Parts: sequence; C-alpha cells; structure tokens
Amino acid sequence: MCRKAKEASYKLARLSTETKNSALYNMAEALGKNEQEILEANRKDIETSRAKGVKEALVDRLILNKSRISKMAQCLREVAGLPDPVGEIVKTWTRPNGLIIGQLRVPLGVVAVIYESRPDVTSDASGICLKSGNAVILRGGSDAINSNIAIGNILSDAASESGIPDGTIQVVHVTDRSAALELMKMRDYVDVLIPRGGADLIRAVVDNAKVPVIETGIGNCHIYVERDADLDRAIDIVLNAKCQRPGTCNAAEKLLVHRDIAPVFLPRVIGALRGQGVEVRGCEETRKIVPDVKPATEEDWYTEYLDLIIGVKVVSGLHSAIEHINKYGTKHSDSILTSDFNKALSFIRDVDSAAVYWNASTRLTDGNQYGLGAEIGISTQKMHARGPMSVQHLTTIKYFVLGRGHIRE
Amino acid sequence: MCRKAKEASYKLARLSTETKNSALYNMAEALGKNEQEILEANRKDIETSRAKGVKEALVDRLILNKSRISKMAQCLREVAGLPDPVGEIVKTWTRPNGLIIGQLRVPLGVVAVIYESRPDVTSDASGICLKSGNAVILRGGSDAINSNIAIGNILSDAASESGIPDGTIQVVHVTDRSAALELMKMRDYVDVLIPRGGADLIRAVVDNAKVPVIETGIGNCHIYVERDADLDRAIDIVLNAKCQRPGTCNAAEKLLVHRDIAPVFLPRVIGALRGQGVEVRGCEETRKIVPDVKPATEEDWYTEYLDLIIGVKVVSGLHSAIEHINKYGTKHSDSILTSDFNKALSFIRDVDSAAVYWNASTRLTDGNQYGLGAEIGISTQKMHARGPMSVQHLTTIKYFVLGRGHIRE
Repeated sequence: MCRKAKEASYKLARLSTETKNSALYNMAEALGKNEQEILEANRKDIETSRAKGVKEALVDRLILNKSRISKMAQCLREVAGLPDPVGEIVKTWTRPNGLIIGQLRVPLGVVAVIYESRPDVTSDASGICLKSGNAVILRGGSDAINSNIAIGNILSDAASESGIPDGTIQVVHVTDRSAALELMKMRDYVDVLIPRGGADLIRAVVDNAKVPVIETGIGNCHIYVERDADLDRAIDIVLNAKCQRPGTCNAAEKLLVHRDIAPVFLPRVIGALRGQGVEVRGCEETRKIVPDVKPATEEDWYTEYLDLIIGVKVVSGLHSAIEHINKYGTKHSDSILTSDFNKALSFIRDVDSAAVYWNASTRLTDGNQYGLGAEIGISTQKMHARGPMSVQHLTTIKYFVLGRGHIRE
Repeated sequence: MCRKAKEASYKLARLSTETKNSALYNMAEALGKNEQEILEANRKDIETSRAKGVKEALVDRLILNKSRISKMAQCLREVAGLPDPVGEIVKTWTRPNGLIIGQLRVPLGVVAVIYESRPDVTSDASGICLKSGNAVILRGGSDAINSNIAIGNILSDAASESGIPDGTIQVVHVTDRSAALELMKMRDYVDVLIPRGGADLIRAVVDNAKVPVIETGIGNCHIYVERDADLDRAIDIVLNAKCQRPGTCNAAEKLLVHRDIAPVFLPRVIGALRGQGVEVRGCEETRKIVPDVKPATEEDWYTEYLDLIIGVKVVSGLHSAIEHINKYGTKHSDSILTSDFNKALSFIRDVDSAAVYWNASTRLTDGNQYGLGAEIGISTQKMHARGPMSVQHLTTIKYFVLGRGHIRE
C-alpha cells in the first residue's frame, strides 16, 4: 500500500488544479449517490459497537446520517474552493555571481493518518490531501472499519474516474495494532504521519513512529482572568469555552483567576458554570471562597477532561498564570481576559502555545474560524506547522537553482 | 541540563536583538582571547585519537589551529549580522466577525544537536541558536570532547557576561551512548533534535528519538547529462561536483549520462575524472564504452562514498534519470545539465530532492552560497525546513487572536 501511495504521489504532484477540483466535486457527488451503501456499512459498525458494550457517547461519534454525509460532501466542495498551494513560486533571488535561486511549493508526498472512531475523518482527510497533491493512507479505528472502507472505496472510485492516479486514497483494512505499527515505520514511503485522537493514541504514535510525526489535538486549555477584566464578558467567554462543546480539544479545561478579584468573581462564575451542569474542582484558595467546591489534585492541573468538568485556581498575577500554563498546559490554546494592553502583550509573547487569545474564547482555534478552510488537525508541536492545519500545511518547498555552468569556487 | 535549557529558553525568547548581537560579538572575541586554552584542549583530543589509532583523515577533522578558530569567531560575527527573525509579525488578518488573527515568529525553544568529530560545530551551532532565541544542548563525539567543553565554557561565559541567561549554551560532558539516548527522549524539554554526521549517526537518531528530529546531510547526489548538454561545461561541473571537496554531503556521487551522447562523452569525462584521481565504477553499458571501468553493483547506486569514487550509469533519457534519482537518491541535491528548457522544468518538478539544479554544481547547496548565512545543517526531510537551515529555520510561528469578547457561535 505504501509503495503504491508513493508511486501515485509522483503523478499527483503534476496534476492541474482543475483536475484535482473536478475530482473533489465528483467525490462529493459520489458520497450523496452512495449514501445507502455508507449508511448500511455504518449500521454494521454501530451494531458491533453496541454489542461490544461501547458507551453511547462514543457510539455517537460513529453514527452517520444523511445530514452528516451531506456535511462530508460539503467539506469536499469547500476544499475544492480553496487556493491550490502546489506550484507556487514562493520566492526567487539572484546571487552576486548570477546564480538564480528559488523556492517552489510542492506536496509532501504521502500522508498517513491514524485516527479514532469518527468516520468523517476518512472523507475530510482524503479531500485535504488530494487538494494539496498528496497521496493518503487512512488507518481508522476498528469501531468504524466498515464505514471507513465504504467511504474510502466510494471516494477512491470517484477520484479514479476523474483521472486521479490509483493509490491516491487508500484505507487500511487490517485494524489490529500490528498494521498501525508497521505503517509508523515506513520511512521509505511515508513523508508525514498525523495522529488524530485521544492522548493515548498520540502517545502510542510518538513512542513508536520512525516516520516524521505532527502531533495534534491534545488540549488542556486555560482561561486566565486578570483583575481588570470585564467580568460580565469574562463569564460569557468562560461558559462558551467550557460548555459550547466540551468534548473538543479547544474547550477550556482550566480557569485561572487573579487573587484580587477572586472573592467577587469566583462565586459568580462558579454559579454560572454549575448552572450549565459543570463540575468544578478548585485549589485551596478557591475552596475558601466557595466552600462546596471539590478539591483539585495535582493530577487535575495536567488533565484534559473532555467533559463538563473544570479546574479553578487562584493565582497571584500574570507571571504565575503564565508559569502555570507553561508547566501544566499542552501548548494548544490559552486565553487572557484583561483590559490592559501590556499584560495582554506579555501573555501573548510568553505563553508557549500554538494559539494565544486576548478577550476571546479558546473554542475559536479552528481552521474555518481562522478562515483557513477545512483542517486535518490542530498541531500542538512547533515544527513544520502549528495550530490548525489545512491544505497549505501539507506542502513543503524545494529549492531550484538555475546556473550557467556555475561551480563552487 | 534539559530543564535548565527550557527555563533559559523562556528568558531568551524575550531578549532584544541588540543584547543577542552584542553577546555574539563578545563570544567571537572570547574565542580569540582564549585561543591557547582551546588549542591545549584540542591537543589532548588529537593525542588520544592518534593513540587509539584513528585514521589521519578523521583526525584532520578534529584539528583546530589559529586559522580555524578565527573562522569560528568570524562565523559568530556573521550570524550577528543576520536579520533577527524573532518577533516578526508574519501576517495578520481580520475575520468578518471582527476577530483579528495574526502570526508571530517565535523561537522553537530548546534545540539539541548531536554531532561527530568537528569541534567548530560547537561554536557555529551556539551562535545560530542564540541568534534565533533558542537554548542549545550540544552533544559532540567523544573524539572532540575536550575541545567541545573548552569552546562551550568560553562561549557560555562570554554570553553570560552579555546578559544571556545561564543554560543557553550547554555541552554534554558524558560521551557514552546512554547520555545521547536519554537526550533523544527528553520530550518535555527538547523541541527539536538535529543530528549532524554520517549515515550511521542519522539512523541511530531516527531509530531512537522520541523528540521531533530534522534529518540532515546524507547526500547521494546525482548529475544527469542530457544529450543536448554543453559537454565542455558538463565536464567542468562534474569535476567540481565530484572533486572540489569529496568528503562533503553535496559532492556528486553519481553521474547519469544520456545514451545518445555516452560514446562521445563518457571517454572524455572518465578521463578527466581519473586525471583528478577519481575511481570510476560503471554500469554494463558504460563498461562497453570504456572497458577498463570497474563494474558498479546494485549497492553502489545507493552509496554515498564521501570519497574520490563515482558511479556512472547510461540512461535512456530524462524519465529514467528521474526514476533512478528518486529511487536511489537521498533527497539532497541533484542537477540536470541541458540546454532544453522543458527538460529542465520537468527535472526540477519531478526530482524529489531538497535542491534541484539546472546547469550548476551540486556543491552549491550551502547556506552561504544561497545567501542565507551560516547553516546548522542541510535538511533532507520535507517537514519544517528543507535544504540549508539557518537562523530563520530555528523559529516557528504562534497564532495570536485578538477579540472583543468573541465566542464560538
């Protein structure tokens, strides 16, 4: 599979934007046309999961319906509408000796994605990889294997019909661990591996991969409320960041509050959070102000709950808030609420995260919210790409050097 | 050490360009002032190596003298003269809802370098990392340990005097394998690991590292001579690429020649190469034209000789030359010699290497030749940086997002 993907990638790199876009439209249409086949495969996956006693919240992430399939198709059409980064001449310059040097934007080659239950990743990742001229190898979880195979076959057939080389979109049918481990070691064929899923999946990939990896999506995100923050607005932002979709990586997991406003702000914000069904776990100082709050353990400060739970800590000021975030955070998204320009600048400069916010919700870290288009993941590492990754992040540059017999003196 | 480097990195990220530059000048001066101490330490390393029976060609890479120390100092001054990438606002845009999004250029944090005998890497890497706002952990080979420690201490003291935080420049004193293995796993502290050395070192790092790695410097570089090439110029370029410094990663290791010109060109080029003391190993067809050429094995096509040896192969044309390069090459630097624009464009587009040349020597792949300044290595992978890596390649971006109470709808 990897060899086939590599071969396809060389052909893909040469395709015109028009060919790729018409394939993406064709793929979108094929999802609609073959809806029944997808739903049938999905039904098998759901039944198997329920029979295995998988929790209903997790089964929910598996479920496809007409509306979800139509969203997958919509995403493919949106990707078709994004600019094609491939072939862009990023820069050229001429050296004093007349040598012309340039940077040409090219695809990475072969992208492997290892992901968990959500079958819409199969379609989204295929679209983003195709648009950026990359072949993709998709290794989804066993829960969604029938859905993934059905979607993969439909997309791959539709792509072939539009002149896309065979091997561009491939779904790994074997779901045991050994297949994933082998994929992680395919250094001659896989240019980058993107894991999408929970902390355990990311850790397993980082521990075992020999191919370059882009880590994604673990978010122990913080909101820090300075003493000069607008407290009404702060409550709106905290509620949005925690409750609007608590299972996502950009949901806030921790609230840090300046000591000076804690006695006023904590009762209000904790009341509001509890009103939305959020369990609050607090530091000692928080519990002195709101006594019925559960105590937070050291472990809590490191935890990404992905649930209606929040850790609350009183801090002495900006500096200790930044230290706390850099120590316990996951370099994803963190926000300061303040009316003070200098404090905001310090926070932006010193918090070591992919996205730092001033007076806004961490939930905004998202390709579409940023205007970058559909994303294949949110990078929490510093190399190559940071934050939401879309089509342009699956490319690299190559130097081209034009001489007239130039040699090294 | 890694924790100390991480702590230093947060302070470093905030330093002004002026502070960093004056530290670099101070470091350059300190190398000159403490020349005797460095030479004394270097003498110990040379004696130990000779006593161990290390080959004189390898001992040569170890040797420092006044001129080499002055070059190290010169490199630090040059790095001071490069633009400071840190703090640059790469881009900002405003979303329809008024949210302002921007990209700020920031240091990677902590850079670890694992390298072999050359002690000048200690100084060059320290300068490039400091200028880009990164702390550096230097783990050189045991051969050069005394030189590396001496240089590291001198640079670190000079940097401290100029207000650079302690822990910015650290040399690992332990030279056994276990220390390197531990360094490769410091995920909480090391943001990127750059191995510099031979194929075995790179492989050991890729196999064992849990931190993000940028692979560098393995160069099985090709020159392809098309049938319409200017043959006089071709001989100059081939000789330069093979012989000007055969032990470097951008030296040509293979020569591919179009079948139509092989009978005319091969006797001339092989004669010229032999005139420079180069051993030629050829394919069957080459040996029909120049019978006393040694036969090349399949293994030869994969080999980076780093020596006065070249593999020569006759190919049927552009397409098979490109296929050969993509199969056997190491994605470093490859050159086409042709007068045909379309062939050059196909070569540039389809050869999957960091640097592709038209009518020029592969020896030109170098930070200074490109006008990028001193380099910390030549990346042969596609992620993050490709080709010569200088100051700007040791940075990343962070998103900053400015709202007025913006939440996710």
